[in-house]
Amino acid sequence: MRTELTLYSYWRSSAAYRVRIALNLKGLAYRQVPVHLVRDGGEQRGEQYRALNPQQLVPLLVDEANGGARISQSLAILEYLDEVFPVPALLPADPLERARVRALALHIACEIHPLNNLRVLQYLAGELGVNDEAKTAWYRHWVAQGLAAVEQGLAELRDGLSMGQRPGYLEACLVPQVYNARRFDCPLDAYPRILARVARCEALDAFSRAVPEVQPDAT
Amino acid sequence: MRTELTLYSYWRSSAAYRVRIALNLKGLAYRQVPVHLVRDGGEQRGEQYRALNPQQLVPLLVDEANGGARISQSLAILEYLDEVFPVPALLPADPLERARVRALALHIACEIHPLNNLRVLQYLAGELGVNDEAKTAWYRHWVAQGLAAVEQGLAELRDGLSMGQRPGYLEACLVPQVYNARRFDCPLDAYPRILARVARCEALDAFSRAVPEVQPDAT
Repeated sequence: MRTELTLYSYWRSSAAYRVRIALNLKGLAYRQVPVHLVRDGGEQRGEQYRALNPQQLVPLLVDEANGGARISQSLAILEYLDEVFPVPALLPADPLERARVRALALHIACEIHPLNNLRVLQYLAGELGVNDEAKTAWYRHWVAQGLAAVEQGLAELRDGLSMGQRPGYLEACLVPQVYNARRFDCPLDAYPRILARVARCEALDAFSRAVPEVQPDAT
Repeated sequence: MRTELTLYSYWRSSAAYRVRIALNLKGLAYRQVPVHLVRDGGEQRGEQYRALNPQQLVPLLVDEANGGARISQSLAILEYLDEVFPVPALLPADPLERARVRALALHIACEIHPLNNLRVLQYLAGELGVNDEAKTAWYRHWVAQGLAAVEQGLAELRDGLSMGQRPGYLEACLVPQVYNARRFDCPLDAYPRILARVARCEALDAFSRAVPEVQPDAT
């Protein structure tokens, strides 16, 4: 098996957290290179990193065994991993089941996370002069809207997890989102399906090794 | 070929616009059901539509030939269409090429569009009391950041389009995003690769039939 994988990452980036979970679920070894998103105005905006990833975001996966291929965007990385290292799968085989899993993961990746990531919170506080209270309300608003939709959608998943009894693509997105929600003290009692699934995942080694606090660059 | 497809859509939704392009590129017939995102506080939030799509967003694709399967999230729909109706493909065959196309499409879908869609602009103007000038600056800021990254990324695509000489997955996202950028008078001169690709696409029937203004619910 090819395992020359490098992940450019930041311990607190929930998009990088998704990819760490996916790599762990597949049992793939990888080297992690930290990109500090805050220090010096953000290392992701520096010349060196920009040459690797013009999107100026983490994560970035480099696959040395595929000519040093550089892949950005966490969900594109998850799809790539599932195509190149198909076992164990992150997505079910049936197109409709795949679509249901992807739709919930995309709800997190498109409707919750982009509104609450660091650069957006910085813009709210900086350019728009939004105070801390209003910024926290903004954060919790999009978490509440988004998780309510995911909670409903989970009822349609066969056996509850991406792969029935096994976590995969969706849980790689859901667990980091709930981690973030807890960090900002978002109320979660209204989402029992989500909480049950997250608890099942958190008990697994693939998830506990991906947690921000245990990454080499955690401070 | 199975063609019992229904698209719940709103003429001005750029996520719905993506799916119209994809359906047209595949030559699939479909029925369109309008969901008015503004009238009466938004029909997408009404009981009837919520029962179909708990995400309370358009688009939603219903595939009657697959047991009335309901699929939300535009990119999940594009993936589903490519899996169930594989010819002509929206994504290249090679995993790395697929990843590059997906990463750029996801940059649009995760880093630009979510920040500028209707419900977010409503929150800025409403809850945060942001004035029109600052709201427009917000809009243009995320468009400029995002398109600059896409412009760079396009240099890495073989022959420039998703499928080399043919548009596909990426162009289904790029053309609606540029349509939106023009609507808000965002400067686009810095993105010659994007503009060249969009011009090639706009000349094609699959794209011209998907334009918001020619949809049945356009006003």
